[in-house]
Amino acid sequence: MSNKLKIIPLGGFGEVGKNMLAYEFDKHILIVDAGMMFPDNDMIGVDYIIPDFEYLYNKSHQVDGIIITHGHEDHIGAIQHVLSRIPAPVFGTNLTLGLVEVKLARNGMASKADLRPVQAGETVRIGPFTVEFFHVSHSIPDAVGLGITTKAGLVVHTGDYKFDHTPVDNWPTDFAKLAELSTRGVDLLLSDSTNAERPGWTPSERVIGPAFDEAIKNAPGRAIIATFASLISRMQQVADATIKNHRKLAFVGMSMVDNAKMARKLGYLLIPDDSLVSIDVALNLPPEQVVLMCTGSQGEPSSIIGRLSAGTNRQFDLLPNDTVVLSAHSIPGNEEAVSKTINRMLRIGANVIYGAIAPVHVSGHASQEEQKLMLNLVRPKYFMPMHGELRQLRRHAALAMEIGIPKDKIIVVENGQIVELEDGKLKIGERIPGGYVIVEGSSIGDADPDVMREREQLARSGIFIVNLSIDKSSNRLLDDPEILTRGFISTDEATTLIPAVRKRVVDVIHGGGMSVERDIVDVVRTFLFNETKRRPMVFVTMTKV
Amino acid sequence: MSNKLKIIPLGGFGEVGKNMLAYEFDKHILIVDAGMMFPDNDMIGVDYIIPDFEYLYNKSHQVDGIIITHGHEDHIGAIQHVLSRIPAPVFGTNLTLGLVEVKLARNGMASKADLRPVQAGETVRIGPFTVEFFHVSHSIPDAVGLGITTKAGLVVHTGDYKFDHTPVDNWPTDFAKLAELSTRGVDLLLSDSTNAERPGWTPSERVIGPAFDEAIKNAPGRAIIATFASLISRMQQVADATIKNHRKLAFVGMSMVDNAKMARKLGYLLIPDDSLVSIDVALNLPPEQVVLMCTGSQGEPSSIIGRLSAGTNRQFDLLPNDTVVLSAHSIPGNEEAVSKTINRMLRIGANVIYGAIAPVHVSGHASQEEQKLMLNLVRPKYFMPMHGELRQLRRHAALAMEIGIPKDKIIVVENGQIVELEDGKLKIGERIPGGYVIVEGSSIGDADPDVMREREQLARSGIFIVNLSIDKSSNRLLDDPEILTRGFISTDEATTLIPAVRKRVVDVIHGGGMSVERDIVDVVRTFLFNETKRRPMVFVTMTKV
Repeated sequence: MSNKLKIIPLGGFGEVGKNMLAYEFDKHILIVDAGMMFPDNDMIGVDYIIPDFEYLYNKSHQVDGIIITHGHEDHIGAIQHVLSRIPAPVFGTNLTLGLVEVKLARNGMASKADLRPVQAGETVRIGPFTVEFFHVSHSIPDAVGLGITTKAGLVVHTGDYKFDHTPVDNWPTDFAKLAELSTRGVDLLLSDSTNAERPGWTPSERVIGPAFDEAIKNAPGRAIIATFASLISRMQQVADATIKNHRKLAFVGMSMVDNAKMARKLGYLLIPDDSLVSIDVALNLPPEQVVLMCTGSQGEPSSIIGRLSAGTNRQFDLLPNDTVVLSAHSIPGNEEAVSKTINRMLRIGANVIYGAIAPVHVSGHASQEEQKLMLNLVRPKYFMPMHGELRQLRRHAALAMEIGIPKDKIIVVENGQIVELEDGKLKIGERIPGGYVIVEGSSIGDADPDVMREREQLARSGIFIVNLSIDKSSNRLLDDPEILTRGFISTDEATTLIPAVRKRVVDVIHGGGMSVERDIVDVVRTFLFNETKRRPMVFVTMTKV
Repeated sequence: MSNKLKIIPLGGFGEVGKNMLAYEFDKHILIVDAGMMFPDNDMIGVDYIIPDFEYLYNKSHQVDGIIITHGHEDHIGAIQHVLSRIPAPVFGTNLTLGLVEVKLARNGMASKADLRPVQAGETVRIGPFTVEFFHVSHSIPDAVGLGITTKAGLVVHTGDYKFDHTPVDNWPTDFAKLAELSTRGVDLLLSDSTNAERPGWTPSERVIGPAFDEAIKNAPGRAIIATFASLISRMQQVADATIKNHRKLAFVGMSMVDNAKMARKLGYLLIPDDSLVSIDVALNLPPEQVVLMCTGSQGEPSSIIGRLSAGTNRQFDLLPNDTVVLSAHSIPGNEEAVSKTINRMLRIGANVIYGAIAPVHVSGHASQEEQKLMLNLVRPKYFMPMHGELRQLRRHAALAMEIGIPKDKIIVVENGQIVELEDGKLKIGERIPGGYVIVEGSSIGDADPDVMREREQLARSGIFIVNLSIDKSSNRLLDDPEILTRGFISTDEATTLIPAVRKRVVDVIHGGGMSVERDIVDVVRTFLFNETKRRPMVFVTMTKV
C-alpha cells in the first residue's frame, strides 16, 4: 500500500469563493467544503458558480465523507449540487449542519441527506482519515479547522479563521490544539489567505457592538441593518443593540428569516421572544422603535436594500428618516454597485452608515500578523496557501518565507493542480480540469466561452437583422428588405440609417454575384461601421421562392 | 444690473470624473474645466462620457473663456467637444495648455484653438470675472486653484489639490494666497471632495521615490512601470530612479510618448538625453538595464499592460523575469479588472508590485485633515463640495459642519442643479438637464436608455431568430423554419433544443389563428424559458409569398 496523500484543490485556489478541496488516500476520498460564488461582472447572465468537481464523478463511491468547516455560502453553497452526484455523509458542527439543512430543504433534498453532527474537540475516523476538529473563531459561530492524519502524515487545514481574542460568542480559536498538533509535527499546513494583503491584525468582532449601538441610538426613525444572511454573529450583535435601545427587531427576507429561526432553535442566536417581531408588526410600530435586518450589503439589485434604493420594494419604501447601516465590505467587483446603492439611498434622504463612516464591519479573516502567528504556532514542514486569488496566495507565501519557511517548502497552486504528500515529501502531481461550473437558469454546465463571447459582442453594439424574400428565377426582391435592430442605435438615428442600408442591400442583389448573402453581410457591416464606428452583429435571412 | 452669480455644475457633482462647471454673471459665462470619464460597467459599448453642456449651446457667444485648472483627463478630456461648440479662448498654465494642445492635435483641432497661457500668481480679467490664479500641489505640476471675483462676491474654486509639503516639483500649495483671499472675505468655497472618506492626511508624492528606487534596484530584469499618461510627476520620479540605478528609460505607447515629449520641451520633465531611449532601442538592451513606462494601471484590455497580461502585445511579451509596478489606485469599478490583470501577470511568472505590497502610489487629492485645513484657511461664508459622488459630497459637508460651518451655509448639489449667489446669499436656482453625453464610435449623444436596456437584455441571454416563408394562399410553410441563435446556448444544447422549437413553430402555423407572428413569438419564448429558465430576445421574420 502506498502512503501517498493527494491534495486536490477544486475551488478557492486562485479565487475568493466556492471553496472545495478533496483529500485522496488509498482510493478513499474526503471532501472538505462545497462552496459557491457569484459571477464576475463579465460573466453576463450567470446566476452563480460552483466548483468543477468532475474529477470525483466516477469516484463518488470512493468518497467516505464531506466535511463542511462552517456555514457561509462560499463553503456550503454548492452542497446540493455535490450531494446530487456524491451521496456521502456530511460532517459538520450543529450550526453548520443547520444551515446546510435550510439550504437542502429549499432544494427539496433535506430528507435524503445523511448529516452527522460533530463538535469541536472531537476526533472522527472517516475511512483512512483520522480527523480532529478544532474550534476557530470566524464571523459565524461554530466554525472549525481540521487536523487530518493518514499514513502519509499530519495535515492541518485551517478553514476560514481569525485569532479574535474577544469574539461575540466568547469562544476564541483553539490555540492549545494548534500547539499540540505542532508538537506532534505537522507535515503540511493549508491556511486561509483571504487577507494576505492586509497588514496588522483584524479587529475583534466586538468592536462593531458600540458602532451598532450608536447608529441605532441616534436613528431618528427606523434603523435598517444590511449584511449577509449567514453572518449569525452579526445578527446577535444587532439583536443586542436593539434590546439595549428598547426597540424591536424584525428580520426581512426569506434567507434571513430562515437562518435566524434555525440559529435560535439551535441556541446560537439568543433573542428573547418579546424583542423579535415579524416585518408586518414592525411596519405598524412607530419607526423609532424599529430595527430591521436584511440582505443587500453588496448592492445586489434583487436584494431588499437594492430594491429599497431603487424604490421597487413591494412591502415598504425607504423613508428620508431611515438610517441604513451597511455592515459588510464590498466583495471585489461589487464596489461600483455598492457605491451606486449608497448614492441612491442618500438621494432619497436616508442616512447611510458604512465602513468609511463608522466601524460597522470587520473582516472574519486573519490579517498578516495572524497568518504569521498561525504559521509560527503550527510550524509546518510544508505550507500551501489556500482561499485567495493568486495575488493573495503569493502574498501569503511571501509571509511564510519572512518567518523562515524555506521557499522550496512552499507550494502555490491554483484549482486543478494536484499536490502529493508521500514519504514526508510534498510534490506537484497531475493537472486535472479545474475551472468552474456555472449555474444559469435550470442549466448547470461549463461556461461555454463561445456563448460568453457572443453575449459580449451582442452587448457591445447590438444586432442588425436583414430579412429578404427573393424570386428564385429572376433573382429579384419580392418585397422591400425587412430590417430589425436592437441595442444598436436610437430610434432617431435609425430613421436615417435604415433606408440607406436598404438601398445598399438592393444594390447588392441587383448586382448579382456568387454569394449574395455573404456579400450583403459584408456591405452592411462595412457601411454601418463607416457611419457609426460600431460593429453590431449582422444577420441576413433570405427566403428564395 | 443684477449682481447675481449663477454657479452651474455640469460635471463632477455626484460623480468622480468629467469635471466641468460654468459661472454666469450678467450674461457673461466663464467655464472651468472640461473633463471626460470612463463609463460604468453597465454602460456597455460606450467609449467615454463627457458632460452634458446643452445649457451652453445657444449661449456660446456669451462664453468669455474656458479655464482649465490642470492637465488630467478628468479636467481636459472633453475639451475638443466643448471647443467645437464653443470657440472661446482657453486659459491655463503652460503644462496644462501643452496637454490640451496634444489632445487637440490628435483631433485635428490644434490650429483653431485660442490658447492663452497664464501663470500661478497672475490676475486675469475675463469679461466681468476677475480671476486670480494660485498654485496648488497635485499629482501633476502646474495645477491651479482660482479666486473669482464678480460684483456678486468672491468665490474660491480649489480645483484638484492636496497640501503636499514636499512635492516632487518643490512647489507646495499657495497657503499665503489662500490666507490672503480669506482676509478679504470669501463668499463661497468650492472644494475637491474626492477623498472626503479618507481620514488623515494624504502622504507626500515624495514617499513614492524610495519605493520606485527599491523596485528598480531589485528587478532582476526589466522594470515596467504602469500609470496614467498624464501623471507627469510620476514620470519624473521614475526617471530619477532609473538614472540612480544606471538604467535607460523608454516610454511606451502614443499618449505616454507624446505627453513626455511635450513636458520635456516645456521644462516640466527633466531627463537627460542619454538616459532616455526609444522602445526599439530598449528592447535590444540587456533587460537589467531597462525601465519601461506605459499605461494600463486600470487593467484596461487595450492598454500595454492589459495586452502584456493577456499575451497579445505586438512589440514585446511579458517575461518571467520582468518586474511590473502598478503605480495607481484602482478607479472605483475597475478593481476586478485590475485584480485579474495582476493575477494573469503573476501566472506568467512576472513579479508584480502594487499598492498592497509597497507604497508605489499616493493619491493626488486632499484627505479629511487637508480638507478641514482648506475650510479653516479660507473660512468661507458658504461652502459647496465638488468633485465626488454624492457619498463624498455629503461626507465633505459633514466635515465642514465639524469645523463649525453652519448647516444652512452648506449646499450639496449634483450635476444640473444651478446655485445662485446674490446679495451675499447663496440659494438653489433652476434645474437644468444635467446628465451625461456618451461618446461611442463616431456618435456623440445621449445614452439612449432604450438602447442600453436592449443591450443588457441581449447580453443577459442572447438572441433567437426564427425565419419563415409561408404560402399566402394556403398559409402553409414553404420551407423548414430557419433558426439562428447567438449568446444563448452552447452548440451541444442547441442540437436538441432547435428541432423541438421548429416543431412547435410548425404546430402554431398549422393551427392557424389571427396573429401567427405574435403567437409564434409567445410559444417560442415560453418554450425556451420552460426548457432553460432563460429569456433570449426572440425575433420572428416572415415572408409571405
